[in-house]
Amino acid sequence: MESTAQVILFDPNCPQRAVMEHLASRWGVLVQIVLLRGTHRFNELRREVGGVSEKMLSQTLQALERDGVVHRLVHPVIPPHVDYSLTELGVQAATAMQALFELIGARWEDFAAAQRAYDERKGRA
Amino acid sequence: MESTAQVILFDPNCPQRAVMEHLASRWGVLVQIVLLRGTHRFNELRREVGGVSEKMLSQTLQALERDGVVHRLVHPVIPPHVDYSLTELGVQAATAMQALFELIGARWEDFAAAQRAYDERKGRA
Repeated sequence: MESTAQVILFDPNCPQRAVMEHLASRWGVLVQIVLLRGTHRFNELRREVGGVSEKMLSQTLQALERDGVVHRLVHPVIPPHVDYSLTELGVQAATAMQALFELIGARWEDFAAAQRAYDERKGRA
Repeated sequence: MESTAQVILFDPNCPQRAVMEHLASRWGVLVQIVLLRGTHRFNELRREVGGVSEKMLSQTLQALERDGVVHRLVHPVIPPHVDYSLTELGVQAATAMQALFELIGARWEDFAAAQRAYDERKGRA
């Protein structure tokens, strides 16, 4: 199980760790999950990912495009029309994020119960 | 596929989204992957997760403990001895993060090639 790639990832200067941080970033995760459902335009993505600013969504999409996870297709029309979708590599990454997302939904009661128990212990301490 | 839990997650005020952000956080991801290999003490974790400060590791572990993902076992000895391990729920979450981690290692050449191609396109533009 211990491959060279796995050892390297824990080095703070490793380029693989930067990719991990894009893929697992706050907005990166939600963008991947939305795009796993299909191609979206910028404003559609912005509506689906509640709370994201135009600037943050733009930066997130650029980082994911650079990593080869998101494909950006510009249609040469007026007004401009840009479609965002996942690449094959992006589908692989998004599937891992979707698994985490589904776990949180499916086991939400366990997460919430743990939080209540923790807060009670701290309140008593 | 569209469950209530999935719709709620995209609301910025949703408590499930906070859990997602802990689990997919920069240090949270690495902590989960290290703990998936076995129980660790604080200083062992700090050595394995390169670049993390004592304060950030402590905050990360507290958030993961509160979410029911990490178990903290204090041995009543002098000097104090504290073991960190994954709960059953934590193993599930960490397994999703491990899948992303393995994807990055296995497909690293594709990620790196995409980054080079992107930078070339931008350099020409």
